[in-house]
Amino acid sequence: MAKLKPTLAKGTRDFSPIVMEKRNYIFNTIKTVFKKYGYSEIQTPSFENLDTLTGKYGEEGDQLIFKILNSGDYLSKISKDQLSTISSKALTPIISEKALRYDLTVPFARYVVMHQNEITYPFKRYQIQPVWRADRPQRGRYREFYQCDADVVGSDSLLNEAEFIAIYFEVLQKLGLKDFNIKINNRKVLAGIADVLDRSDLLIEMTVAIDKLDKIGVNGVKKELIERGFTDNNVEKLSPILESSGDIDDQLNLLKSFLGESVIGKKGIEEIEEVISYVGVLDSQILEKLQLDITLARGLNYYTGTILEVKTNEVVMGSIGGGGRYDDLTGMFGLAGLTGVGISFGADRIYDVLEELNLFPEDTEEGTKILISNFDSAAERYALPILQRLRAQGIAVEIYPTAAKLKKQMSYAHTKNIPFVILVGEEEMQKGVYTLKDMKSGDQQQFTESELLKYFGEQ
Amino acid sequence: MAKLKPTLAKGTRDFSPIVMEKRNYIFNTIKTVFKKYGYSEIQTPSFENLDTLTGKYGEEGDQLIFKILNSGDYLSKISKDQLSTISSKALTPIISEKALRYDLTVPFARYVVMHQNEITYPFKRYQIQPVWRADRPQRGRYREFYQCDADVVGSDSLLNEAEFIAIYFEVLQKLGLKDFNIKINNRKVLAGIADVLDRSDLLIEMTVAIDKLDKIGVNGVKKELIERGFTDNNVEKLSPILESSGDIDDQLNLLKSFLGESVIGKKGIEEIEEVISYVGVLDSQILEKLQLDITLARGLNYYTGTILEVKTNEVVMGSIGGGGRYDDLTGMFGLAGLTGVGISFGADRIYDVLEELNLFPEDTEEGTKILISNFDSAAERYALPILQRLRAQGIAVEIYPTAAKLKKQMSYAHTKNIPFVILVGEEEMQKGVYTLKDMKSGDQQQFTESELLKYFGEQ
Repeated sequence: MAKLKPTLAKGTRDFSPIVMEKRNYIFNTIKTVFKKYGYSEIQTPSFENLDTLTGKYGEEGDQLIFKILNSGDYLSKISKDQLSTISSKALTPIISEKALRYDLTVPFARYVVMHQNEITYPFKRYQIQPVWRADRPQRGRYREFYQCDADVVGSDSLLNEAEFIAIYFEVLQKLGLKDFNIKINNRKVLAGIADVLDRSDLLIEMTVAIDKLDKIGVNGVKKELIERGFTDNNVEKLSPILESSGDIDDQLNLLKSFLGESVIGKKGIEEIEEVISYVGVLDSQILEKLQLDITLARGLNYYTGTILEVKTNEVVMGSIGGGGRYDDLTGMFGLAGLTGVGISFGADRIYDVLEELNLFPEDTEEGTKILISNFDSAAERYALPILQRLRAQGIAVEIYPTAAKLKKQMSYAHTKNIPFVILVGEEEMQKGVYTLKDMKSGDQQQFTESELLKYFGEQ
Repeated sequence: MAKLKPTLAKGTRDFSPIVMEKRNYIFNTIKTVFKKYGYSEIQTPSFENLDTLTGKYGEEGDQLIFKILNSGDYLSKISKDQLSTISSKALTPIISEKALRYDLTVPFARYVVMHQNEITYPFKRYQIQPVWRADRPQRGRYREFYQCDADVVGSDSLLNEAEFIAIYFEVLQKLGLKDFNIKINNRKVLAGIADVLDRSDLLIEMTVAIDKLDKIGVNGVKKELIERGFTDNNVEKLSPILESSGDIDDQLNLLKSFLGESVIGKKGIEEIEEVISYVGVLDSQILEKLQLDITLARGLNYYTGTILEVKTNEVVMGSIGGGGRYDDLTGMFGLAGLTGVGISFGADRIYDVLEELNLFPEDTEEGTKILISNFDSAAERYALPILQRLRAQGIAVEIYPTAAKLKKQMSYAHTKNIPFVILVGEEEMQKGVYTLKDMKSGDQQQFTESELLKYFGEQ
């Protein structure tokens, strides 16, 4: 066996105990809320047949899919002659028939089509699993990362959208975020704007440009619109949209006057109004966080109705969540006309936000609650029964497994953030008690067994 | 986009909501116990550098590792000439530098070596993640499956072994299993037996043969021993070991007389006795489940001390867990002399056992607790506030998102195993009440809002 100095594969991460606790805190918070809103968990395999994934993410996306080499003598399917002239791209489908999932959406679509006869609609599912992308790794961008998605398919009710907004609100509040916004827009409003300009042919060009408003400003967008084929006249007419501000009512009034009689535009406004009305009935507090952002687009080709995005204002950070309604999730697998709406949480970004704002609860880092010290064999035997009795109460307790120096044992407790240490020595054994040390305050106190069990209570 | 009928990649599975709930029930039970014993969770990436994994699982294992094709123009690293003569096996390391993890042990060893300076020993970690093997799929054998491992490294105290036995006991009891055995043996006892026969050179041959006792019986083992190089005399001398039965004391007595003055054999007996003594002090009930199985080996090359295995007697099934002590986990990565002991649970097999014995708690399958029916727009608006108030109490509640036929809504509740439906119609709205239907008994009762909130209480 070669003794190599091991490294991580590029763009991947180990998660150590404290990081895991924090990640689980985020995932559990999200899961708890998803469940409360009636969403059920599913999981799909890490790899799919290659042809399930290819062609779904565009040319660029296809290149970022990790392909798995066939097992065995994979070159047997190709002649030596062919091999000497073939390109990597042409060889790939011959020597690889499986690939790691690139997102959770396409596998979910595949799942829905394969299980369509056993699914009861509306089907509300959530899925929290890693995905893999052969992206160039950089700060905050990894080749393996988790996606947290919830979708409901088979229901066109806009109440679903309102409930997703409530889910965002509840999760972010639970995580301790205070200043955040949930932005809403509607693809039909964007289509209406292009319609009014009489440039429906340039809808995608338009949204690609105005989606950049945050980054390049109004003048940048105007310049880009010209580059993308719009006339000066178009751009001037668009100005009020690009420069729009104010609360939801102001924005709606602007839109109503701008969109005039555009049928699709009016439909978009109606949908936004209905979602907002539902949100107000569910919980009017949420309205304070809700913003209408006429320039929000998010992967326009995919969404057909509501578009959602979540941003925190407490930290400089891209969106920490987003989603929207689509009308043809499963068409790619031959099941047409299934409407749905979904959202996702950016768990890695949320992690960074909570870390920066110091919002992880103190006990997140606490694994074991009590360490029982180990002086010698007699003290160890004296302590084992209380160890099990505390555990029977649901408390995480460890005994240091050997009679090491006390300093070493205390340092172990300290490094592992263990808040209490039980000390057992000659005196304790004679008196039939246990000394409990509070690691934070340094206080020590003697307890009988029953006092100790009572002190920590049933967990 | 091609409209293909999608399929799952061979040997993989989708997990639908009910199956996920049951799987999570098993994982959560195991995690809760791991944590109570002071084990912390870590996670490692799904793929590792190829050279981290190759050479660790033997020739056969290496072939079962899923390799990931390099991204981009992966053939650029090899000339056309070379390509026309190369074998698949020789090509693999040129076009693949990453591979999916095959187990959790090697990545854990890599983790320990890379994080050695930040780890506090003894390091107690658990890890529950999928692994991938390019095995031929068959009933109960998948290409993607979860492993549940807990290990402590950096402590040679046999108290660790005893605590693992207690963990097995507690998890299986919590899962509702009644008739199971935790088998213990020690590699040093096996070495002692070979020592006494004066055939230490054949230790591995011996254990491979006697490890099959369950499958091929005493005569089968004897035949195999002869085939593997033992003399008739050796086999005759081994007879009492192969035919041994009785309780732990009987077996220990047999071993003591058989092993006589063998130094390693005596050491093995001592270790077994110490583990058993610890178990007795931790919880004497566990001793009823503990069996000394002199023929237990489990991957002998790996284990150096205690060997553990768990079997249920209620269902015909292979072992549902196993583990042992090893003295050189990290030597393969250049960090020598780190001792450790670990166990794992076979989650898929445990799933099948619980399913066959009908041991999943009834509420495992219950996701949403209450469905609020949706008669019309007015009833919907009337119901939304109570929907949110129930959720605020931590209860999983859904409202049917459209005013579909009641029959359809009830069938939705039924299929999703939702135990309660709240009915809101003309009468309820006039009276300011809600009708609660118990789906199991069929009983209906009217509640005011506060009565309803009280009925379901804080969850």
